[in-house]
Amino acid sequence: MNRKAVLILSGGMDSTTLLYDLRGQGYDVSAVTFDYGQRHKKEIACAAATCRRFGVPQKVIDVGVLGELAPSALTRADRQVPEGDYDNENMKQTVVPNRNMVLLSLAAAYAIGTGAGRLFYGAHAGDHAIYPDCRPAFVSAMATAFHLCDWEDLALEAPYLYWSKGDIVKRGLALGVDYAGTWTCYKGGEKACGKCGSCDERLKAFSEAGATDPLQYE
Amino acid sequence: MNRKAVLILSGGMDSTTLLYDLRGQGYDVSAVTFDYGQRHKKEIACAAATCRRFGVPQKVIDVGVLGELAPSALTRADRQVPEGDYDNENMKQTVVPNRNMVLLSLAAAYAIGTGAGRLFYGAHAGDHAIYPDCRPAFVSAMATAFHLCDWEDLALEAPYLYWSKGDIVKRGLALGVDYAGTWTCYKGGEKACGKCGSCDERLKAFSEAGATDPLQYE
Repeated sequence: MNRKAVLILSGGMDSTTLLYDLRGQGYDVSAVTFDYGQRHKKEIACAAATCRRFGVPQKVIDVGVLGELAPSALTRADRQVPEGDYDNENMKQTVVPNRNMVLLSLAAAYAIGTGAGRLFYGAHAGDHAIYPDCRPAFVSAMATAFHLCDWEDLALEAPYLYWSKGDIVKRGLALGVDYAGTWTCYKGGEKACGKCGSCDERLKAFSEAGATDPLQYE
Repeated sequence: MNRKAVLILSGGMDSTTLLYDLRGQGYDVSAVTFDYGQRHKKEIACAAATCRRFGVPQKVIDVGVLGELAPSALTRADRQVPEGDYDNENMKQTVVPNRNMVLLSLAAAYAIGTGAGRLFYGAHAGDHAIYPDCRPAFVSAMATAFHLCDWEDLALEAPYLYWSKGDIVKRGLALGVDYAGTWTCYKGGEKACGKCGSCDERLKAFSEAGATDPLQYE
C-alpha cells in the first residue's frame, strides 16, 4: 500500500495532533475538513491555518445537508447549546444523527478519488459513551465496509481509538503541537467559553496531562 | 420494531418495484431521492410522480458534493456516456466512487431523524460485477454499521440482493407496477436511447421476464 493518506481534520485537538503524528511517520497527508453549518466556524479556520503552515493540501467539503436532514443544537440558531460536562443527558442534543458515517463515507470518496490507500480519523475513547458512532464496534464495521467499497483496498485507521483525550494531549505536547492553533468550544465566541461540554472536556484533558492550555478563555 | 420504513427511491425500475412491494406488505413508507447532478433528471421526476400518486412523503436530498469529490461521466457534461452493455470496461467510468456508502449514510440520518426502524434499498444481483459497493459482503458490512450507528436499532434491508433484474420485473408485473412511470436511461433525452448500458440492461430484464417494456424508445 502506498504512503498516501487522507486525514479528517476538524481543527480540534485530536485531529490536529493526528496530523502532526502522521507527518512524523512519513505519510503523504491530505486533509479533509467538513463544513456542516456548525456555530464553531473557528474550528475550520484553525484547520486551514494548520494546513497552510505545513503545506498540507486541504479539501473543505460542504455538508450543510446534514443540518437539513437532522436539525440539532449545533446547527440551529434557535436552540441553546447546553452547558455542563458530557455526562449530562442534554449533551445528546448536540449529536447530529449518523454524522460520522456520512463524514467517513464522503472522506472515503475523496480518498479513492485521489488514490490514497488510508483514511485516518481522530476518534478516541472519550467519545464512546456519548456518540454511538465513535465506539470501536462501529469503527470496526466501517473499516470492513471500507475494505469492500471499491476495487482498490481502502484502510480506515483510528489510532487514538482507545486513548483518552489526556493521552492525546500528552502525545501532542511531545510532538510539539501548537494547541493555541486548535479550537474546541461549541459556541462561536471570540474566546473559548470555558463552560460548554466541549471546553470542559478539553480543560480536563490538559489537567490530566499535567499541562496548561495555551488557548484564551473568557 | 415499528412499521415505519424509509426507501431509497431513484425513480428507476428496482426501487419503484420495491415501493409497490413495501406498500403491499403494510409498511408506512417514506422515500428519499438523491439529486447528485446526474444527467438523467427524468429519473427524479419519475420518483416524485410515483410518490404523489400514492401519497408517499418524499425527501429529495442534494448530493451535488459527490460530483465535486469525484467527477465521472455521469456528472460532467464534457465526458461521453459510454455505449454498450455493462460488461464493457468503459462502464466503470459511470461509477461515482463510494456513492452507495454516501447515499446509505445520508438516508440513515434521515431514517433516524424520522424514527423509522428500517431502511430499504433496491440493490440487486445484476449490479454486483460492476459496482463493488452493491455486493452482498458490502451490504452486510453496512448493515452491521447501521445496527451500531445510533442508540436505536436501524435495520438495512435489500430484499432483491440476490435477484436478477428480470426477477424484479416479474415481481413488479405481478404487483401491477407502472413501468412507463420509471426511468433508466443514462442519457437525458426525451425518449430512452435504447443503447446505453443502462437501457441495454433494462431491455434484457423485460426480455428475461417475457414481457414488453411500455417505455418509449428513440
